[in-house]
Amino acid sequence: MARLATPLAKSLGLRLPLIQAPMAGGPSSPELVAACSAAGALGSFGFAYTQPEDMKKHSVFVRAKTDRPFGINLFVSPQPGPIEPVAQAAALAALAPWYAEMGLAAPEPAKPPYAPDLQAQLAAVAEIRPAVFTAHLGELDAEWARKFKALGIKLGASATCIAEARRAEALGLDFVIAQGGEAGGHRGTWLRDPQEALTGTLALTRLAVRAVRIPVVAAGGIMDGAGIAAALALGAQAAQLGTAFIPCPESGAPEVHKQAILAAREDDTRITARFSGKAARGIANRFLREAEAKHLPSIAFPAQNKLTGALRQASAKAGKPDFYALWAGQAAALARALPAAELVARLESETLEAVQRIASLEKE
Amino acid sequence: MARLATPLAKSLGLRLPLIQAPMAGGPSSPELVAACSAAGALGSFGFAYTQPEDMKKHSVFVRAKTDRPFGINLFVSPQPGPIEPVAQAAALAALAPWYAEMGLAAPEPAKPPYAPDLQAQLAAVAEIRPAVFTAHLGELDAEWARKFKALGIKLGASATCIAEARRAEALGLDFVIAQGGEAGGHRGTWLRDPQEALTGTLALTRLAVRAVRIPVVAAGGIMDGAGIAAALALGAQAAQLGTAFIPCPESGAPEVHKQAILAAREDDTRITARFSGKAARGIANRFLREAEAKHLPSIAFPAQNKLTGALRQASAKAGKPDFYALWAGQAAALARALPAAELVARLESETLEAVQRIASLEKE
Repeated sequence: MARLATPLAKSLGLRLPLIQAPMAGGPSSPELVAACSAAGALGSFGFAYTQPEDMKKHSVFVRAKTDRPFGINLFVSPQPGPIEPVAQAAALAALAPWYAEMGLAAPEPAKPPYAPDLQAQLAAVAEIRPAVFTAHLGELDAEWARKFKALGIKLGASATCIAEARRAEALGLDFVIAQGGEAGGHRGTWLRDPQEALTGTLALTRLAVRAVRIPVVAAGGIMDGAGIAAALALGAQAAQLGTAFIPCPESGAPEVHKQAILAAREDDTRITARFSGKAARGIANRFLREAEAKHLPSIAFPAQNKLTGALRQASAKAGKPDFYALWAGQAAALARALPAAELVARLESETLEAVQRIASLEKE
Repeated sequence: MARLATPLAKSLGLRLPLIQAPMAGGPSSPELVAACSAAGALGSFGFAYTQPEDMKKHSVFVRAKTDRPFGINLFVSPQPGPIEPVAQAAALAALAPWYAEMGLAAPEPAKPPYAPDLQAQLAAVAEIRPAVFTAHLGELDAEWARKFKALGIKLGASATCIAEARRAEALGLDFVIAQGGEAGGHRGTWLRDPQEALTGTLALTRLAVRAVRIPVVAAGGIMDGAGIAAALALGAQAAQLGTAFIPCPESGAPEVHKQAILAAREDDTRITARFSGKAARGIANRFLREAEAKHLPSIAFPAQNKLTGALRQASAKAGKPDFYALWAGQAAALARALPAAELVARLESETLEAVQRIASLEKE
């Protein structure tokens, strides 16, 4: 039996209590998920923007590489209906100068559906039958929860406050992910104002461990084995790391994103809802700073994500970090560019070192 | 030799790697400082608003109770000059309805000095010669740093970002306190916008440990031994806890403050500069919510603190939490009302338990 095997890690079939965070929109590529799972962590797809057919293809890819478990994550928040033309026009006008600067045609209004159909995505999950399914930005429908459980899929959900953690427990989920304020990317908050649900990972993890009886996974600002050991000390049964995996060669993040993370020397992240319509944490680049400072109008998630799509892609393609959503957690400065398997191995040995270091204090 | 003795704890003469956070304005009373120090932690005075004569009296009180080391903390930020009458009138007008509601006379404009003279306070520190002096909200003058060092006083400073931690190291301080975003009370930020220096404790502690060679103390959201063990796992050499000590019978916090912390079930804290003129985290009560929502005008620290003084005191005296500054960290919901010595003993045994718990994972 592996060392550091918590009850949750065992029940998910992992060699170590480590989840590679699902990161929709690129980073959690099939190659990254396969490499993390093969190395003994839980590789996880962020399929929020992925069509059911691609979900299945990507899962087949992973299964061809490894028979280890992997996870799938979806955003379970409802999509908005048609956006008021006036609101849409204002959001488009705000983006127009940047589109022009990048030499792109003015963006078109977004029309529903703004993202893949959630019911079709959930049906694809049932078909794929991953080891783990996690919900972000809301509560998984109870019918689907029952169906997934009957299929043997272990279930988790993000919580950014105690109220959300309790709902995960009440729904009968197998674990809850305490997404602390440090975490990069989209805030999972769904019961509070995301700006008022920024409890730090250390505090939130401990609050959650004390508030619910289901296992807690700590997420946010964890970049190395010392962080994983800290999560375990807080009573978490696993740590979920996203930013740490973005610079991996297997990650599907564009080079501008990887380089921005590797160049970080200080916490220069901020939260904005102006890229996608939902609050998310990223490195403060030109888009983020200017859009926030000017309080630029934006529309609901994921329609806003559609409006900024061509701009973000063009920015990445041009090797220009200015308009790309550089999602990252607050400890990005600790990132390293290593192949995923090597990173997982180092995280494991660092965790063991940190545990031994504090255990030796205990003996003095 | 005590267990859990880190090099910093040993050099400060502590039985365990625990600092009772200095909390200006009441909580860190002579009784609390004496009880914490006697129990083997570092009791610490928050003397920001305390006159030199009282600083000396309080220190004499502690020394009559215990020969264990204690610390003194001061706010080293410069005081503003006279406040523009127009700005002052606006701040006073904003407060007037609440003063009236409490049956108080309308508040008077604040005149300098708004707080005790820093040079006189520093001279008092030199006279008292505490084991430890820590600076908050700025950089200790290099002359004073040399003088204190020559007197054998160990020196530390708060840092809310890596830039501040590096300045503490460059000044030759003995340790730096990584004040994470979770921390209650005044943010120590002095090189950045406090709203952009809210890195969570887990991330900030690890970033600081990796960025500087002097010992790091973790602060913010730590309420029990699991939190202390997590801080040690991150490489911190001690943990600084404030909110955890507020409900102690020895604490000088008014009953409304103690009860608000003990009643917390979720993180309901927010940051405001409208009580004092400097950003601080507290439980969101009527004052905090309304003042923030209405963007009420306020003046510079500590002049604003003067303007709200009578209102805060009256609110506490009336047993009404509405207008008191309920400073608290994000994990306040984990607080317990225990005598300080008992709390310190429990923190120690919980830390040992947490260390043993994760060490046993390592053995599987």
